[in-house]
Amino acid sequence: MEETKRYLEIVEAALGSALSAGLPGERPAVLTEAMRYAVGAGGKRIRPLVCLAGAVAAGGRAEDAAKPAAAIELLHNYTLIHDDLPAMDNDTMRRGKPSVWAKYGEANAILAGDALQALAFAVAAESPRNVPEIVATLGVAGVGVVQGQVEDLGRGEGGALPEDSVAFVYERKTAELFVAAAVMGGYAGGGGQKEIAALRRYAVNLGLAFQYEDDLLDGDSPFPREKTERLVELTTDAAVAALADLPGDTSFLEALARRLAGRKE
Amino acid sequence: MEETKRYLEIVEAALGSALSAGLPGERPAVLTEAMRYAVGAGGKRIRPLVCLAGAVAAGGRAEDAAKPAAAIELLHNYTLIHDDLPAMDNDTMRRGKPSVWAKYGEANAILAGDALQALAFAVAAESPRNVPEIVATLGVAGVGVVQGQVEDLGRGEGGALPEDSVAFVYERKTAELFVAAAVMGGYAGGGGQKEIAALRRYAVNLGLAFQYEDDLLDGDSPFPREKTERLVELTTDAAVAALADLPGDTSFLEALARRLAGRKE
Repeated sequence: MEETKRYLEIVEAALGSALSAGLPGERPAVLTEAMRYAVGAGGKRIRPLVCLAGAVAAGGRAEDAAKPAAAIELLHNYTLIHDDLPAMDNDTMRRGKPSVWAKYGEANAILAGDALQALAFAVAAESPRNVPEIVATLGVAGVGVVQGQVEDLGRGEGGALPEDSVAFVYERKTAELFVAAAVMGGYAGGGGQKEIAALRRYAVNLGLAFQYEDDLLDGDSPFPREKTERLVELTTDAAVAALADLPGDTSFLEALARRLAGRKE
Repeated sequence: MEETKRYLEIVEAALGSALSAGLPGERPAVLTEAMRYAVGAGGKRIRPLVCLAGAVAAGGRAEDAAKPAAAIELLHNYTLIHDDLPAMDNDTMRRGKPSVWAKYGEANAILAGDALQALAFAVAAESPRNVPEIVATLGVAGVGVVQGQVEDLGRGEGGALPEDSVAFVYERKTAELFVAAAVMGGYAGGGGQKEIAALRRYAVNLGLAFQYEDDLLDGDSPFPREKTERLVELTTDAAVAALADLPGDTSFLEALARRLAGRKE
């Protein structure tokens, strides 16, 4: 899609700017390098795309949401760095390359994640309007994603997630960042309460669909396969249905929901 | 001082509110508990006091700065949790009690720190005015304090800090949070450019004096004792001199600078 390319250029420019202007003196070099390595390592930028498209759906321009789009990607990448740590998932690889701690050591990985989170908020504060709402949204998501991760770790290595934890973990650990992306985009695009509510409904369902599809691809769904497939359909339909309440062009968000539900990786 | 008591009440109320309302569902319990344990563990609340007094010095009221004061203390406490981790200073004790990782495990400590940082920004976004400036200030400090920590870790265990790193580490790792406290207070109290600049000058010198005095108390100054004593005097005087440019009552900030320079612990 032509729009995807244009949106990705906005996102990469905002990320590049954050990772230079946002790191005064670029010192120490190893910290700057580890942060850039983590963020540059081939993510699909789904959350920032949702953020830009959220601004458009709310009636604004994609450019309005460049800063919160970069912010949500920085925050997302910090969570990946910390998830990979030996004390957590102990993953030495991420996206086909050494994980940050495997490459730069544990202390530098913890600290690069910490700095990325701070930078995310600094960048969100540069949004062109509604900064209090945008930062509060990112803050709630930043707490929620940790709540989800702690609950998720509670199952222990290789253990199954207890039934009553599944919804909590999926909503906090996965959907929360999609919600923040869409809602921040809506605020940046000048949306009011009605638009924000619709974007929230879209994104929580998109996030759940994304997670259920992830489970199918990984073959580790907590539910039988048929039930999970049905859940992908239901949440994708609910996401698309929420778009009817938005005044701007929602075709990008609709196509994204359909594409994520049928993705192969 | 009567004022200290009143200020501390404002700070504790704001922290208590953040650590309940800011943790939706208070789930998982272990995360909530670890966060409260870290923040409640007997800190002197110097940075939040500087924040409240900064609002007063800028011409506002101490209450205006309750949110940024809580935010800087949350951020400070997250840095302590992460500094104590096995991959960094490997400290099992903090303020006479088990450190967070020693009590709750490494993963929970990393995550409790992460959530405290997010919560700090969420709380800062609730400031009554100048939210973009306040959050940007906290964001810059959040990045800076990590830059200082990475540089500090670069010396290796037991090693001395190279001469050219001392100023960088002291400014980023210690002074940066004092600066953020004072400047956020100034913004919350309605200060303009002149007041913010004076508070910044006060706080960077206060932070350096605090660190030099710390070195004297710990007996690990990078300089000869006489030089360090002289540096404490010089920076304390510079901090106090900066207060002349402020329109509000600066007696609290002046007394604090004098007290920190002569402290015994």
